[in-house]
Amino acid sequence: MQLGPFFGLPGHERAQQLDERNPLLTQRGRFEIGDPELLYLDGNSLGRLPSAAIATIEHTTHHQWGERLIRSWNEGWWELQLRLGDLLAPVVGARPGEVIVSESTTTNLYKLAMAAVRARPGRRLIVTDDLNFPTDNYVLAGVAELLGCEVVTVASADGVHGPTEEIEEVLAGGEVALLSLSHTCFKSGFTYDVGRLTAAAHEHGALTLWDLSHSAGSVPVELEANGVDLAVGCTYKYLNGGPGSPAFLYVREELQDVLENPIAGWWGHADPFAFDLEFTPTTGIRRFHVGTMPTLSLAAIEAGAAQVAEVGIDTIREVSVSLTELMIAEAEQHLTPLGFTLRSPRDAAQRGSHVSLSHPDAWPITRALIEDAKVLPDFRAPDSLRLGIAPLYISHVDVHT
Amino acid sequence: MQLGPFFGLPGHERAQQLDERNPLLTQRGRFEIGDPELLYLDGNSLGRLPSAAIATIEHTTHHQWGERLIRSWNEGWWELQLRLGDLLAPVVGARPGEVIVSESTTTNLYKLAMAAVRARPGRRLIVTDDLNFPTDNYVLAGVAELLGCEVVTVASADGVHGPTEEIEEVLAGGEVALLSLSHTCFKSGFTYDVGRLTAAAHEHGALTLWDLSHSAGSVPVELEANGVDLAVGCTYKYLNGGPGSPAFLYVREELQDVLENPIAGWWGHADPFAFDLEFTPTTGIRRFHVGTMPTLSLAAIEAGAAQVAEVGIDTIREVSVSLTELMIAEAEQHLTPLGFTLRSPRDAAQRGSHVSLSHPDAWPITRALIEDAKVLPDFRAPDSLRLGIAPLYISHVDVHT
Repeated sequence: MQLGPFFGLPGHERAQQLDERNPLLTQRGRFEIGDPELLYLDGNSLGRLPSAAIATIEHTTHHQWGERLIRSWNEGWWELQLRLGDLLAPVVGARPGEVIVSESTTTNLYKLAMAAVRARPGRRLIVTDDLNFPTDNYVLAGVAELLGCEVVTVASADGVHGPTEEIEEVLAGGEVALLSLSHTCFKSGFTYDVGRLTAAAHEHGALTLWDLSHSAGSVPVELEANGVDLAVGCTYKYLNGGPGSPAFLYVREELQDVLENPIAGWWGHADPFAFDLEFTPTTGIRRFHVGTMPTLSLAAIEAGAAQVAEVGIDTIREVSVSLTELMIAEAEQHLTPLGFTLRSPRDAAQRGSHVSLSHPDAWPITRALIEDAKVLPDFRAPDSLRLGIAPLYISHVDVHT
Repeated sequence: MQLGPFFGLPGHERAQQLDERNPLLTQRGRFEIGDPELLYLDGNSLGRLPSAAIATIEHTTHHQWGERLIRSWNEGWWELQLRLGDLLAPVVGARPGEVIVSESTTTNLYKLAMAAVRARPGRRLIVTDDLNFPTDNYVLAGVAELLGCEVVTVASADGVHGPTEEIEEVLAGGEVALLSLSHTCFKSGFTYDVGRLTAAAHEHGALTLWDLSHSAGSVPVELEANGVDLAVGCTYKYLNGGPGSPAFLYVREELQDVLENPIAGWWGHADPFAFDLEFTPTTGIRRFHVGTMPTLSLAAIEAGAAQVAEVGIDTIREVSVSLTELMIAEAEQHLTPLGFTLRSPRDAAQRGSHVSLSHPDAWPITRALIEDAKVLPDFRAPDSLRLGIAPLYISHVDVHT
């Protein structure tokens, strides 16, 4: 997958030769592709429908809901969120029993941020950056207000690259309870060195909470190896779990019985069917459950998550890097002369699986791409065009096109 | 639907004659009934699958997700939670724009309880009872701990009837920030006089938060007419929204711009797509949104909710009362001599749509009903059998059987 030897070739031929070595080229056949001409560059927002998900949705609807009714709770539903978590664990480098699927990314971030800050009494700072997805900034500000803390939002110098050194300086002050960042940033696609910042946080007594929404399923993160404490992420982007599908959360095994879920619901109780009036939290990852979750949407996650797990995150990453490298090379050749500016890191090691370009006329260009060229990119106000490259169904030839 | 004239007749004939006047008898044909012999008395836990939901789930899967992909956000998804809320509004006696479907009942209860208590600074009590669904007690205890308050759990004298007068006494102390109860209690089916307790709470400066999980779709509540401040409830029981389908929440219009959602997410922002780093809460019911919700499970709610809205909650209530009256009459005639005790109110005005019976051998009896008699009831430890009577698909003849 080294691009070097191919870069002298004309564009289309180069893309074809890269695809000949692309181990993921057959994966596209596992998705429902409605309009074959549509070039869908929005897998960073909503992933495509895996064909295998259709049978699962039908089975869940007709058999489990329609026929088995409440008996389905004992026939798989009760364990579904843990089973999906264990399926996702290798995708994010976690151990079995460290991940569950539950609620929205926002609510999970709230639960884990509250738990983390309360586990660090006396420390009054929460650190984040201005490249984070804004909902994360909102949640952290809300948590700070409730718990009497303060949020430090470290600014990126260029709006593209994460301010790693500046964050390390804040951590060194020793007052930080929690460091919370997006692993891959939603605008520029900048991807943090999780190991480096987690180590810095731990050195100075802070906990870490990573939002993997824009990396899960496209960039490896190695939660366990990097010693990460907490993480949340979305299943409807590169994991192809379906529209608004419930999010996942990760709690490092050693912290599971130490942290407290602020939303104490019966699913997190040690014996939910005893219907005690007193709350006794259960042990392990179930402690971060709250209430009953939407089964149809949960069940639909399995096909996409299983595909990513089966193909392997390292292979996906390898192809993703090759695709975004090609995208940037093509953009530099054809688009820079037209006034486009690359707003993603040039260094592949610092980049996720989407590429951002800015142009003063980004909005009319987006409209024209959708209406005339059958390309579906993602526009972000005021002048940014995001091109999401999902390696499971986007090829080098697509990128060239 | 008066039972009186029929009560001299032999059981089966009486049930048949009641069904001749049952305006809901044709509604059963709108559900998928897998095994026609199964008598499903668990609609209070998971409602049946409405046939119309199947087409909605297929359309959402194939067309909206598979073909339209992210374009579906602008083609209905973004407004779905409000549209479902407006569909449910008349079912609970609310005004348009006062209800949304969003997250789990537990998380919604947490959000609204936090908001309510924070809106009553200086008042340090939260009042509930010991008939509430335990998750509500857990959430309220968690909220009290976070906000430095105390929960007063008023005990029912007999474990069946709600302690209305005792709650009024606590309210009269003038220190209560929030009164939170289940409208219909999950074990006995006791149903509170919402108007009376809401008026008492308001007289003494407290806000009210009702959990409608066991009444929505079976017992009218008249939120607006009763001046209720806040409510939450489940859509997968009598509303037949599907397994674990997202819950609804109600915020009285006058309070929407006063209360603060503790989980500040981008869906509750005044301009979510501006991606500001500062949180500016939006106005109206959208303020109680958090993050992206599971579309497949949301979409599945529409069929069941529309059916209840179309039939009308008053008609459903009328049939429900007739059915539970018959159930109790049959139980007194046939089951009391066998050692069963009624654990629901005898007065229909104080009862929801399920009937609880206790027996020392309730667990083996439940197993025998399921295995030998094709009756699916609901067992609650240690000795309680709940018989959920969903009037849309349970007839008087079923009850007699």
